[in-house]
This record gives sequence, structure tokens and C-alpha cells, in this order.
Amino acid sequence: MRIPILKLHNYLLISIQTDLDDQTAIQFQEDVLKKIHTTGATGVVIDLTSVEIIDSFIAKVLGDVVSMSDLMGAKVVLTGIQPAVAITLIDLGIHLSKVPTALDLEQGLLKLHSELGE
Amino acid sequence: MRIPILKLHNYLLISIQTDLDDQTAIQFQEDVLKKIHTTGATGVVIDLTSVEIIDSFIAKVLGDVVSMSDLMGAKVVLTGIQPAVAITLIDLGIHLSKVPTALDLEQGLLKLHSELGE
Repeated sequence: MRIPILKLHNYLLISIQTDLDDQTAIQFQEDVLKKIHTTGATGVVIDLTSVEIIDSFIAKVLGDVVSMSDLMGAKVVLTGIQPAVAITLIDLGIHLSKVPTALDLEQGLLKLHSELGE
Repeated sequence: MRIPILKLHNYLLISIQTDLDDQTAIQFQEDVLKKIHTTGATGVVIDLTSVEIIDSFIAKVLGDVVSMSDLMGAKVVLTGIQPAVAITLIDLGIHLSKVPTALDLEQGLLKLHSELGE
């Protein structure tokens, strides 16, 4: 299955509402980068509210998506990181320290607005 | 699989990026109604840009989602109906005549704003 990517004005909105397996995560990475390329999006919000568990591979893919999007000129904000996911990330030593985060989709969009100075 | 439903302010945004089978469509109907109930959303945009084909059952389910959401107090706008889908709908005698439609997600949100007088 593929994660749907919504385009709204200059932003891409992505809500991951399933636990990602490796194949889906790789496909997702490819889809996001392609979509940034075709739409010229300047910002991406990835909402993880419904992601309950995460492993080191998925965490790495997510981190990579952020860095790659950044290279392509699109700012990524991660939103809705659950307590268990936050614990796993830090336990794995993945701090995503340069990645802006926010509580939910609305806050994420506001954060993008301010990060991009729009 | 389930269709992700994003909540943005008072609206639900749904992008169907897969051809719906019967099971997924029924699950989708249930999920939308539940989400309207839990979030108190006043409007729903269902984007069909990536739906290439539709059959009579799926068309009926979509029509039902619109009527049911309406009953619950949420206005639905359908966006991005592809030519082939429009042809099938009219051929099947499904006119969805009371359903507001729009070209894409942005236009759909604008339409909701004006329909709801916000």
C-alpha cells in the first residue's frame, strides 16, 4: 500500500495512519521526493499521530526523508509524535534535533509558515 | 487497508489515492462518520483525483457518505472527479446533483468556506 500525499497550496500534507513496514517506508520516501519535485512544494507536514510503534529502520527512513527534502528545498515538520515513539527514537539515539516538530497538523502548518517566513 | 482522514481546523480532508474495493469502501464510510462524530467537523473534502475507475457499488457508498454526513451536520465537497469517473457516474444514472464539487483540494476548501458561510 502507499501513503497518500495531499497537496494544499505550497505544502504537502501527509498523515501516516498505519504502522509502516520496510517496503511501505521506502515507497513513501520515493513518493514524497517525487511529489516535491512535481509540485514544487516548499513545505511538508508529516503527521505521525496514528503511528504507535517505530523501529530503527523506519526511524532512519523518516530522518532521511527530512534531510533529502531539505536538500530539494522543502522544509519538513513532523507532528503528532506519540510518547512511545518519542521514547523509542531517543532510546535508539535518534534525536532528529534539526527537525521542527509540532503537536498536530494545525500547529505543524503554523510552524511551517513561521519557518518559511510566510 | 484504511483511507487516512486528516483533520484540519473544522474540516476533514480525505484523499482517496487507491481504487476502492468494496471492503475498503465500507470501512471508509464507517471511518468518516466516526471521525465526524469524534471531531465535530463541519465540513469534509473528499478528493478523488487519483481514482481512475468506479463501479456502481462504490458510487452508491460515496453518495451514501455524502447523505449521512449531511444528516450528521457536516457538509461534503467532492473534488478532482476524473473524466472516466464522471462518465461512469452519469452512465449509471448517479447524478450526485446535490453534492457540491470542485476541481481540486484548494478549490474544495474554498467551496466549503462559502457553503458554510465562513
